[in-house]
Amino acid sequence: MNEFEIIRRFFTRAPGRPEGLSVGIGDDAAVVRIPTGQELVLAMDSLIQGVHFPHDTPPADIGWKALAVNLSDLAAMGAEPRWATLSLTLPEADETWLKEFSDGLFELAGRYRVDLIGGDLCRGPLSVTIQVHGLVPAGQAITRTGAKPGDRVFVTGTLGDAGYALSEAAATGSCHDYFFRRLNRPDPRVEVGMAIRGVVNSAIDISDGLVSDIRHILDASGLGAELQADKLPLSEPLITAIGRQQAISFALSAGDDYELCVTVAESNVDRLELVCHTLDIPVSHIGVVTSSPGLNITGIDMQASGMRNDGYRHFA
Amino acid sequence: MNEFEIIRRFFTRAPGRPEGLSVGIGDDAAVVRIPTGQELVLAMDSLIQGVHFPHDTPPADIGWKALAVNLSDLAAMGAEPRWATLSLTLPEADETWLKEFSDGLFELAGRYRVDLIGGDLCRGPLSVTIQVHGLVPAGQAITRTGAKPGDRVFVTGTLGDAGYALSEAAATGSCHDYFFRRLNRPDPRVEVGMAIRGVVNSAIDISDGLVSDIRHILDASGLGAELQADKLPLSEPLITAIGRQQAISFALSAGDDYELCVTVAESNVDRLELVCHTLDIPVSHIGVVTSSPGLNITGIDMQASGMRNDGYRHFA
Repeated sequence: MNEFEIIRRFFTRAPGRPEGLSVGIGDDAAVVRIPTGQELVLAMDSLIQGVHFPHDTPPADIGWKALAVNLSDLAAMGAEPRWATLSLTLPEADETWLKEFSDGLFELAGRYRVDLIGGDLCRGPLSVTIQVHGLVPAGQAITRTGAKPGDRVFVTGTLGDAGYALSEAAATGSCHDYFFRRLNRPDPRVEVGMAIRGVVNSAIDISDGLVSDIRHILDASGLGAELQADKLPLSEPLITAIGRQQAISFALSAGDDYELCVTVAESNVDRLELVCHTLDIPVSHIGVVTSSPGLNITGIDMQASGMRNDGYRHFA
Repeated sequence: MNEFEIIRRFFTRAPGRPEGLSVGIGDDAAVVRIPTGQELVLAMDSLIQGVHFPHDTPPADIGWKALAVNLSDLAAMGAEPRWATLSLTLPEADETWLKEFSDGLFELAGRYRVDLIGGDLCRGPLSVTIQVHGLVPAGQAITRTGAKPGDRVFVTGTLGDAGYALSEAAATGSCHDYFFRRLNRPDPRVEVGMAIRGVVNSAIDISDGLVSDIRHILDASGLGAELQADKLPLSEPLITAIGRQQAISFALSAGDDYELCVTVAESNVDRLELVCHTLDIPVSHIGVVTSSPGLNITGIDMQASGMRNDGYRHFA
């Protein structure tokens, strides 16, 4: 198989949304149409073997997660996903690997009718770069910059499971399937993101860790926040595995959760909770935005818990 | 420096086209506006150290070329470049390297007022993935699929210089600056591409080698072509260095030229030549499209010249 055959066999599927796609895979570039009144939202993220995932990660999970982390960025902007491009670098053209990887990728893509419309394939150390393209009504993208003093801070889902999975797998070589699934198959909160446009004041997805990521929101507006550790949403399996105190530690500082963290005016809290209830996604009130800068976390002894409070850094 | 500081110091510059950019670097995703009546053209290409460029390639050249190969794809579609996203993976946060790399990237970006609006930065083996976004009037993108029997085949510039540079550098460790420049600082034919919309019937950029790339055009329409080897445009330095026969070999099969290969109806040849003359870009008539499939090259003994006739393949 050369790269053209690989692309044809594993990465060329009939588009789920032929409308809007003028030129797909197989030309020098793809061409798409953006409906009038919509803006285009772009996010690009890479997963590198040995950095973002261990060497023994199942190929299907790599495919799923590489798309999921990008869809999570679109969700944080309130965008509806449409198209993806993929740059895949791999050491050898292993058919089984390619089949599983592409199946994992297309499984998630199919859920949101995201069409793969272009990219690049070459030989090299295993890495996956995906760019996703979404649509949002003009001027309605949710950003990190809109937080206001008094806003309530909410997060979706539960936090800390993925971080625990990574830590446990590194220490013992394995962990319970529940945690692996949370690490390798994150569910991007796409529906929530689209439904909270006009409801929340700011949003970010939690990829590096709650404490690190909420700081981006606060820094963008020169604000601070008070978070209540005892209100952090924790899964039963996590509490059972390591106890509440350690679970809080992971929830605050471990990455890879891909939940949304939003700030919302008190007057819109009911709408936020209704939206999430309707979509059957848990959402938890964990704190409040303050006009004085700085992040204050009550209910946990930060030093005693031994937690990192700065999230994941690629270059320390 | 952590990744946020690197992005701020080296990759965040005031946009050259603030109009159309709703959200730039620094949020979960970028947001752009597409003017009514325009379509969006997307191309993504990666450069991997040790695969696409030798380990001793100057960082500024890597930055330039990573963007150039993508702009070349937009040129082949007739698109006007607008925005770029960058996923950069590098082994360490070396300030000198980052300064030179970003300077090379922004030097070419500035020429076309291409704004860097997002991306990703992480630690790992050196690789650069760029996606470029261009605009084209709706329905006017040039594709690979429009060739017709009787079309004349033209190429811009000269061919074979970059391939010779790569080969010579691999064999001897060095070569003349002219050739290195042709290898490391390709000039994407953006102005030509935009000016030949509605003039040519099909276009492709020459990245893998003329013979390999023109086959994509021919295969897309089930056609063939006759090319005349003695009409291939060769640079004086290349002829001087290795003689005409070997130069033809490189021109036919070596990659990295990033010139355009187009097919044009005989009735539009004058317009094509006038456009290129006006832009001061050489363009050469090298053959004709035939209704019978297959590529026939006259004027060279393919076997005697020892040339590859299938272009570069990542997975053979």
